[in-house]
Amino acid sequence: MNRVINVDLGEQSYNIHIGKECLPSLAGLLAGVPRGSRSILVSDDIVFRLYGEQFYEILQSAGLKIEVAVLAGGESCKNLETLGWLYEQMISKGLDRQSTVFALGGGVVGDIAGFAAASFMRGIGYIQLPTSLLAQVDSSVGGKTGVNLSLGKNLVGAFYQPSLVFADVNLLNTLAEKEYQTGLAEVIKYGVIWDSKLFDYLETNIESIKARDMDCLIHIISRCCEIKAEIVAQDEKEKGLRALLNLGHTFGHAFEALTEYKKFTHGQAVAIGMVYATRLAAATDMINEQDAKRVTDLIKNYGLPLHYGDIRPSEIVARMHLDKKNTGGKITLVLPAAIGRSEIVGEIDPAQIEAILI
Amino acid sequence: MNRVINVDLGEQSYNIHIGKECLPSLAGLLAGVPRGSRSILVSDDIVFRLYGEQFYEILQSAGLKIEVAVLAGGESCKNLETLGWLYEQMISKGLDRQSTVFALGGGVVGDIAGFAAASFMRGIGYIQLPTSLLAQVDSSVGGKTGVNLSLGKNLVGAFYQPSLVFADVNLLNTLAEKEYQTGLAEVIKYGVIWDSKLFDYLETNIESIKARDMDCLIHIISRCCEIKAEIVAQDEKEKGLRALLNLGHTFGHAFEALTEYKKFTHGQAVAIGMVYATRLAAATDMINEQDAKRVTDLIKNYGLPLHYGDIRPSEIVARMHLDKKNTGGKITLVLPAAIGRSEIVGEIDPAQIEAILI
Repeated sequence: MNRVINVDLGEQSYNIHIGKECLPSLAGLLAGVPRGSRSILVSDDIVFRLYGEQFYEILQSAGLKIEVAVLAGGESCKNLETLGWLYEQMISKGLDRQSTVFALGGGVVGDIAGFAAASFMRGIGYIQLPTSLLAQVDSSVGGKTGVNLSLGKNLVGAFYQPSLVFADVNLLNTLAEKEYQTGLAEVIKYGVIWDSKLFDYLETNIESIKARDMDCLIHIISRCCEIKAEIVAQDEKEKGLRALLNLGHTFGHAFEALTEYKKFTHGQAVAIGMVYATRLAAATDMINEQDAKRVTDLIKNYGLPLHYGDIRPSEIVARMHLDKKNTGGKITLVLPAAIGRSEIVGEIDPAQIEAILI
Repeated sequence: MNRVINVDLGEQSYNIHIGKECLPSLAGLLAGVPRGSRSILVSDDIVFRLYGEQFYEILQSAGLKIEVAVLAGGESCKNLETLGWLYEQMISKGLDRQSTVFALGGGVVGDIAGFAAASFMRGIGYIQLPTSLLAQVDSSVGGKTGVNLSLGKNLVGAFYQPSLVFADVNLLNTLAEKEYQTGLAEVIKYGVIWDSKLFDYLETNIESIKARDMDCLIHIISRCCEIKAEIVAQDEKEKGLRALLNLGHTFGHAFEALTEYKKFTHGQAVAIGMVYATRLAAATDMINEQDAKRVTDLIKNYGLPLHYGDIRPSEIVARMHLDKKNTGGKITLVLPAAIGRSEIVGEIDPAQIEAILI
């Protein structure tokens, strides 16, 4: 039996299905996909080699006319050039306004394919088939789509909801350790911003989670998706509350950009970002020392990095000015107030950030 | 006194202001534009030379921190490359999520700047300042934004509503005759699809309209905007009714594309498209001969072309297959049934289209 979580967004509502060895159940969930028009399965190199055929056959067996587009993959391909290439694929393979995009992969594939769906012919349907932990707990849910500019991450995109998210935890078995860890950073984030029970669970089940125990994973992923569904339902377009999901991300995006997306995975950068957000919160007495230590310890215990290495703090702060949450030249950050509770803090003095970075 | 037309779209509702010598009234309409963040005035070469300074000063006098980005202009610049350049301008000039884009120009500027606003940081505000007849009667209203791909027009974009449309008819005084005519083609379209009284008015006031009489223009532009507002309010995302606005456009896009956007203006291509749509309607007894003749005569009397010239009909039909209205490989067209009434006709046999093209 799949766990089913509804994202309640009025006419744009949709379900997230989470299960183990549940791929065969996908075909039965595609009744709403128009059969008269071509669909496209978008994936990356690595994922397509592992799972492409399997998904292709499921979609075909559901009666879909299915085309394929395989991206190089990786954060460096999440740009306008790849997007342009994907549009050309979509038009030359005969997709039309009733077509559906299936995004099979991690966050990069989901973000690009989702934005392509949002903008191709001014918007067609799409379905997320997340294959990484990061995508299953975070990026595939909530409708944030987009690509990077050379000056920063996710600076171009749309809020555009999928019609279905389908996550089989068994797909995580083939995930590289580094990619698995990057997802765990986002899981820890949910604990810190929203749910002290989830945080406790992550503290007490380190070994089974590291060993990718499938039942543990279903529990964690479901809980993260529930939290995200709750937040997104209240604030789809990130006017306020939703920004909490960015804990560690403003720092993280700067670390990623300043190391040209080569040194850290997204989750590693977010993990380090959470460490510094927590340090800033502690320095301003927003969080007590004990809770701050628990955050840093958990990140460390999951093998995630704690320091950004050899970058100048002034460069980090300069980069953080480009973040989408900022308005009018001031820096806004999400900072933890306790385990399970974070706050959006505006108008932060850049000097204060630089001070805790050293 | 400006004419004010409301586009009723719930939370996305906005007003269209139409007047003569009304530029000074613009500043008073910008109360909702955040002052804390930078705005950007996007225009093309020609329009910016004529009106850039004037608008810049108005926006500055309203207390906005205003940046400028000037495009080359013309249909051939309405592509992903220009869009990428514009994103870089927006980020490097310090725009943020509270920023506003002002689109000063014709359809091309409005479409690109509108899509840039729709997708920059997943959507910021924008205001349309249309300077061409085509933009004032059609493209600036209704939230269709986008760019072309090499394989076809407007294949990438978003439905994204401006917060204000502001049209001063005096700006049309400097419009090149060809550009003025291209707008008249869209005006005629509104008469054919929706409003026999507007059509009559166009028949009986040819000389004053050709002479750009400002009161005639206010009447015509207001009526077109009212019609568009009514249609868009009923069907924002073009699930049905809104497709009527595409009369002549499926043919027209094919004529434009097959002559590499060099031989015809958009309106000229649409005018020829209306001639052939009318011919197809007459051939299938959908419209009577008298009404069909009135359509063609009016197009001719406004100096618009009636024939596409030297293109192979089979190529035209092949190209028409790429239109966004088509689904499942069949061709859908808008065809006139009488003066003031058109219908969306699906599943048209390509051979029938080819027959009337010869």
